[in-house]
Amino acid sequence: MSYFMNYAIQLAQMVEGQTGVNPPVGAVVVKNGRIVGLGAHLKQGDKHAEVQALDMAGENAKGGTIYISLEPCTHFGSTPPCVNKIIEFGLSKVVYAVKDTTLPSEGDAILEQAGIEVEYQYTEDAAALYRDFFKAKSEQLPEITMKVSVSLDGKQATDMGQSKWITNSDVKQDVYHLRHTHDAVLTGNGTINADNPQYTTRIPNGKHPIRIVLSRSGNIDFTKQLFQDSSSEVWIYTENEHLKSPNANVKIIYLTECKLKDILKDIYKRGIGKLLIEAGPRVTSEFLQTHFIDQLIIYYAPKIIGGSGKNQFYQTNDVIDLNHATQFEIISTELINQNLKMILRKK
Amino acid sequence: MSYFMNYAIQLAQMVEGQTGVNPPVGAVVVKNGRIVGLGAHLKQGDKHAEVQALDMAGENAKGGTIYISLEPCTHFGSTPPCVNKIIEFGLSKVVYAVKDTTLPSEGDAILEQAGIEVEYQYTEDAAALYRDFFKAKSEQLPEITMKVSVSLDGKQATDMGQSKWITNSDVKQDVYHLRHTHDAVLTGNGTINADNPQYTTRIPNGKHPIRIVLSRSGNIDFTKQLFQDSSSEVWIYTENEHLKSPNANVKIIYLTECKLKDILKDIYKRGIGKLLIEAGPRVTSEFLQTHFIDQLIIYYAPKIIGGSGKNQFYQTNDVIDLNHATQFEIISTELINQNLKMILRKK
Repeated sequence: MSYFMNYAIQLAQMVEGQTGVNPPVGAVVVKNGRIVGLGAHLKQGDKHAEVQALDMAGENAKGGTIYISLEPCTHFGSTPPCVNKIIEFGLSKVVYAVKDTTLPSEGDAILEQAGIEVEYQYTEDAAALYRDFFKAKSEQLPEITMKVSVSLDGKQATDMGQSKWITNSDVKQDVYHLRHTHDAVLTGNGTINADNPQYTTRIPNGKHPIRIVLSRSGNIDFTKQLFQDSSSEVWIYTENEHLKSPNANVKIIYLTECKLKDILKDIYKRGIGKLLIEAGPRVTSEFLQTHFIDQLIIYYAPKIIGGSGKNQFYQTNDVIDLNHATQFEIISTELINQNLKMILRKK
Repeated sequence: MSYFMNYAIQLAQMVEGQTGVNPPVGAVVVKNGRIVGLGAHLKQGDKHAEVQALDMAGENAKGGTIYISLEPCTHFGSTPPCVNKIIEFGLSKVVYAVKDTTLPSEGDAILEQAGIEVEYQYTEDAAALYRDFFKAKSEQLPEITMKVSVSLDGKQATDMGQSKWITNSDVKQDVYHLRHTHDAVLTGNGTINADNPQYTTRIPNGKHPIRIVLSRSGNIDFTKQLFQDSSSEVWIYTENEHLKSPNANVKIIYLTECKLKDILKDIYKRGIGKLLIEAGPRVTSEFLQTHFIDQLIIYYAPKIIGGSGKNQFYQTNDVIDLNHATQFEIISTELINQNLKMILRKK
């Protein structure tokens, strides 16, 4: 267990959702048992975490150890290679928690040749932070979290469509934080019509995600508040080539066929690294039948709704054998003021 | 709940135990929902957290909000006042979690006069971080944590003095972290003779606390490994004016009478802001009868030791009425691999 590595990972977690298609990275420089510099990658195109931490440390970095949540880069991207900076500042040791599988990995050799000790200290928390990033980068698809709030019997709303409010206000706060840590939120047009949501982040100084609406028909009611609100852009994916934007904040993206994969590829190309899906049963079920969902978060409220189950969150046309039902692994459970939050990943 | 304030507090927690008699402080600068700068006070005499974060943010700070775990200072100490820097960088808002009760508080007025909004956002985690600091500063005494590892029946060792090992290796790791986050560890000479401990921090790159030994008689066995080990200084408080140091690493501090309060005042004057007491029954009991202990941490191992209880951790000469027994409040409990960690404060 390394406290300093945990601090580097905490720093990375602080900037989740603000680095676009770049990974969130944290770094801590330690000399004689003290932190002499700390940093995080704040924005795509901006300084890397190592550089921030080394700049803060200045002369104190000499002979010290740098802890980084991710392997330092060796390439000239929008900034020069971090390994050069590490060598230049005269560190004696580099410890990193995760190897970057998306880049040629010559960093260890370059550092060792410069007389710097390198330690790869695998850390599960960091691995969890980048697991979906690597997959996303190699497939050029965003990391996807799906969130659903349901009753104990799996319903997002009553048969009459009443869904306000299944979960409580503490869960809502938790969802605001999810929005803050994702670049964009995707929903279906049906949810816009039923609930008239804004999908903003109501936490002080929070970052509003870009709002993405899926509407194959393009039968949009532009008076809904989402389209009037300019706190962040709204993108509409549609197969309706006649759909016109009502204002500068709403962008219409026309595809001849709105296949989920094509939409996701396009979203990634536009700089969305992390996507949150918050939708009704239809879009939720459509996505759950694909392999695109990296993480599923279910908030269970301690109530039962009953009815015919028109708005149960998972519905399919096909009936499959129980042995072939999609299996998940429970990553964590947390009680949020009597509502249960469960984080899952497909097995 | 403010995520950014929590991040500022996390940053402060990262530097606990490395700021001497200064408080640990963290700061985060936010603009348009993104973190554009972060910092922590790394060392007494060094830049304050606000300055680190603003320097990282640079031009991006303009119009932004700074979250600080502690009210920004308005005085010229070893560095210029932080409020001046905040005004100079053109921030539009300052949010802080704790008011500094040890300094004249004119910061709000100065900032507001400069057109900057100020929000005092009380946060319990931050208050907990500074509660003992304020008391310590006003009384010029270190913040004191006492740690004891005991059996279910309250014994630090068997009647024969056997104490290796009551708790497990995961508890030891937790104790190493306690040492890392305190400037010094205090023990009695009896413990040195019985256990021959080193009181170092065996975590990678951890900070070794200064080791303080209380020995009124000055009857010291300098062959013990603590006195040979030079990873940090050893200070001996004694009433024996003839005691001489065996090497440069060991400092003898002679007091005509070794009253606990005088020792603690002297320790604080020498720059120790946070003191951990890890001692045997005698010193432990002596301190527990005073009001100097801010926090008591008990690690219970799931075993019973029995015997006459020669080494029970709390022993007094006087017998007091049950209604006057010292009362504690349980702050938290945590299971560490089948050992229970209990954090308490005197009521």
